[in-house]
Amino acid sequence: MLKGNAIVGQSGGPTAAINATLAGVIKGAFEREAIGTIYGALNGVEGILKGTICNLSEIIKGEADLKLLSHTPAAALGSCRLKLPKMDEKPEVYEQIIDFFKAHDIRYFFYIGGNDSMDTVAKLSAYCAQNDYEMRIMGVPKTIDNDVMGTDHTPGYGSAAKYIAASMQEILRDTAVYKVKAVTIVEIMGRDAGWLTCAAALPRLYADVAPDLVYLPEVDFDMDNFMEDVRAALEVHPNVVVAVSEGARMADGTYVGASAQSGVVDAFGHAYLSGTGKALELAVKEKIGCKVRSVELNILQRCASHIASKADLDESIMVGAAAVKAACEGTTGKMMTYVRTSNDPYKVETGSEDIQKIANMVREVPREFINERGNNVTDECLKYIAPLTFGEPDIEYENGLPKHFVIK
Amino acid sequence: MLKGNAIVGQSGGPTAAINATLAGVIKGAFEREAIGTIYGALNGVEGILKGTICNLSEIIKGEADLKLLSHTPAAALGSCRLKLPKMDEKPEVYEQIIDFFKAHDIRYFFYIGGNDSMDTVAKLSAYCAQNDYEMRIMGVPKTIDNDVMGTDHTPGYGSAAKYIAASMQEILRDTAVYKVKAVTIVEIMGRDAGWLTCAAALPRLYADVAPDLVYLPEVDFDMDNFMEDVRAALEVHPNVVVAVSEGARMADGTYVGASAQSGVVDAFGHAYLSGTGKALELAVKEKIGCKVRSVELNILQRCASHIASKADLDESIMVGAAAVKAACEGTTGKMMTYVRTSNDPYKVETGSEDIQKIANMVREVPREFINERGNNVTDECLKYIAPLTFGEPDIEYENGLPKHFVIK
Repeated sequence: MLKGNAIVGQSGGPTAAINATLAGVIKGAFEREAIGTIYGALNGVEGILKGTICNLSEIIKGEADLKLLSHTPAAALGSCRLKLPKMDEKPEVYEQIIDFFKAHDIRYFFYIGGNDSMDTVAKLSAYCAQNDYEMRIMGVPKTIDNDVMGTDHTPGYGSAAKYIAASMQEILRDTAVYKVKAVTIVEIMGRDAGWLTCAAALPRLYADVAPDLVYLPEVDFDMDNFMEDVRAALEVHPNVVVAVSEGARMADGTYVGASAQSGVVDAFGHAYLSGTGKALELAVKEKIGCKVRSVELNILQRCASHIASKADLDESIMVGAAAVKAACEGTTGKMMTYVRTSNDPYKVETGSEDIQKIANMVREVPREFINERGNNVTDECLKYIAPLTFGEPDIEYENGLPKHFVIK
Repeated sequence: MLKGNAIVGQSGGPTAAINATLAGVIKGAFEREAIGTIYGALNGVEGILKGTICNLSEIIKGEADLKLLSHTPAAALGSCRLKLPKMDEKPEVYEQIIDFFKAHDIRYFFYIGGNDSMDTVAKLSAYCAQNDYEMRIMGVPKTIDNDVMGTDHTPGYGSAAKYIAASMQEILRDTAVYKVKAVTIVEIMGRDAGWLTCAAALPRLYADVAPDLVYLPEVDFDMDNFMEDVRAALEVHPNVVVAVSEGARMADGTYVGASAQSGVVDAFGHAYLSGTGKALELAVKEKIGCKVRSVELNILQRCASHIASKADLDESIMVGAAAVKAACEGTTGKMMTYVRTSNDPYKVETGSEDIQKIANMVREVPREFINERGNNVTDECLKYIAPLTFGEPDIEYENGLPKHFVIK
C-alpha cells in the first residue's frame, strides 16, 4: 500500500458537475486508509506550481458540506487553462512539481478536467515513473460537450442536456401562444460535436411539443435546404422552433456564424462576429420575412446547477471516488470512464482508459443518430441521452436562491 | 346574486405565473354558487370574437390538474395582442361580443393580461353598462416587467426575478474560476423599467458574489462613466460582471443598443441590430481590450417555470380567485392589485383599482432605489424584491423534464 497525502485540482471550462466529481474524490480520499491529508490545488496545476493550495481535510466537515459542494456550479477550487511543456524542453517545471509533491508527502494526484488536464496526467505520470518517484496520478474527464472518446458519456453532459431540454420545452410553450407565423432559432453550445443540440429534441419523447428542426456540426449545413425546411414547417404550424449548434458549418467548412460576418462590418470595416443563431435569424428575415428571433443559451448551459441531473451528479461523485479507489489499487496515468452496461434499465459502471489512446480526439454524434435529411435526430439518439438527464437533486435553497459551497 | 356562466382569457406576452392566475380564476369559479360553467377563450378576446372556446369545467378534473396548470409556463389558453376598437367607431364588435355572452349565458368575464387587456376590460364593462346587459368584467394584471401602477408588484415578476437572480449567481460562479481579466455583460429584459435588472443584484444580500455594476433605463447611460466603472472594478478583482437593462439609454434618448447599430451595417448597408449587451461588449473590447462576453437572458426570463417563485405562484392563484370573489360581490370594470401590508414578515393582500387611473402609465424604479452614481441598486430596493422570489414550488418531473398541463 502506497501511503501518503493526496492533492486534487480542477481545470478547463466549468460544468454543473465538476464539483460533484471533486466531492467524490474527497469522499474517496476520506475513506481510504492509504491517504492522509487531501489538499486542493487552487486554479489547477497553477496552484501546484505556485504553491497555492488548501487543506480539504479541514475545510470539508462532513456529508452536508460534500452534498452542498456537489450542488455548486463551476470549479470550487478555481480553474486554469495551462498545458505542461514537453518534458525534455522544460524539465525544471517537472522537477518543481515533484519537489512540491515531496515537500508535502503527496503520493496521489487527481485532476478533473478536459484534454489539457489529461495531457498533464499522462506527462506527469510518465515523468514520475522515469524518475523513480512513486506517484498515482489519475484524470477524471469533465465536459458538457460529451465529445470524449473511450467513455459512454462525460460527467457534466447530463446536467447540461437536462437544462437544454427543459429550457427548450419552456421556449416551445412560450412560442406557441400566438397564432402569427414566427420562427425561433435556439443556438446551443458545441463547436465540434452536436451532443448538446441533440438534447434539445428530448421533449419529443414525452411531451406534445418538440423543436421542428435540429442542425448539428456533423452534417454539412446547406442554406437553401434550411430555408426549404423552415418553409415546410411553417405550413404545418405557425410557430417554428429550430435548434442549431454553434458549430454548424457549410460543406466548405465555413461556420454558419461566419457566413453572416462576411457581409457585416463595423464602423472600422472589421468583420462583425455574430453567432450562428443570429446569422440564421438574419437569413430567415431576409428570405422569408416572417417574425423571427434568435436565442443563445450561452454559458448557463454549463453552470445551471439549479436544474442539474441527479443521474449526472450521482455518477460524477461515483467516478471521483472510483478514481481514488483505482489509484489506491495501483492504477496511474489513466483517465476514468463510464461504461454503460444496460440501457433499459439504465446501468453504468466506471472504468479507466489509456490517455494516449483517446487524447485529442473528438467523439462526434454518429451519423445513424441523425435523420437522412440531416435536420433532426433519431429516437435512438434521444434514448441514449434520456437516462443521463433523469432525476432531480435535492437542491437546498435559502432566501429564494440555491445555496452554494464556497472554498475561500 | 348575478347567476350565469363565466369566461376567462389570457393576453399579451407569456410569464411563468399567468397560468397560476388562470388556475386561481378556475378554482374561484368552481367555489362560487353564482357561477355555472367556466369557459376558456382561446387566444384571448380573439376566441370570443371567433367563438373558439373550451369548457374548463370539464377539462379541469380537480386539484391535481390545477396544480399542474399553475406550474406550466406561458398561456395555456393561448394569447393575442388584440386591442378593441373605440366603441363609437365599431359598435358592431361590441354587439358581437355581447351576443356571444348572451348565447352562452355568460355574466362573468375575467381577463388576465397587460395594458391592452385592461383596456378591453374597461371598454367592455362601460359598453355593457350603457346597454343594460349586466356583466361583471375583471382584469388581472400579469407582466414580468413589474411596471404597472396601482399595485405593489405584478403577478409574474417574482418568478422572473428569481430566475434572473439564480442565473446571475450561477454566472458569477462560472466567471470566477479563471484569474485572467474578463468582463461579462448580462443583458436583461425591460425596455422602460429596470425592475428585472435590479433582481440580478439579489445575490448580494446573501451570497459572497454579486454583479459589480447594474445599469437601468431610469438613469441616463454615459459611455465614459461606464468605461471608468469597468476599469475601476477590474482593479478590485479580475472577473467583472455587469447587469444591464435592454432599455438602457443615453441622455439624448438613444438606446445603448442603437449606438452600436449606427456603426455596424450588413452587406446591403442596413443598420445591423445588436442588443444592448452586444453593444457594450464591442465597446469594452475596443476601449479596454480584455476578454469580454455578453449574455442575453432572453425569453427564458419569462417562461422558466422550473425555477418559479412559490410566493409568486401562490399569490397569482390568490389574485385569480380574488377576482372571481370581487366580481361575484358586484365589482366590475376594475383591475386586481396587490397591497403589501408588511415587509417583515412579508404580507400581501389583494385589492382592485380603477383601470382609467392607471392605464398606459409605467411604474419606474424610484430614483432612491438606485445609488448616486447610477451604477447599482440599493439594499432597500433588494429588500423590496426579495420576498417576491421566496419559496420553491413542488414541480412535478417525469423522465427528467418538468410536467406541464396542456389544454388541447
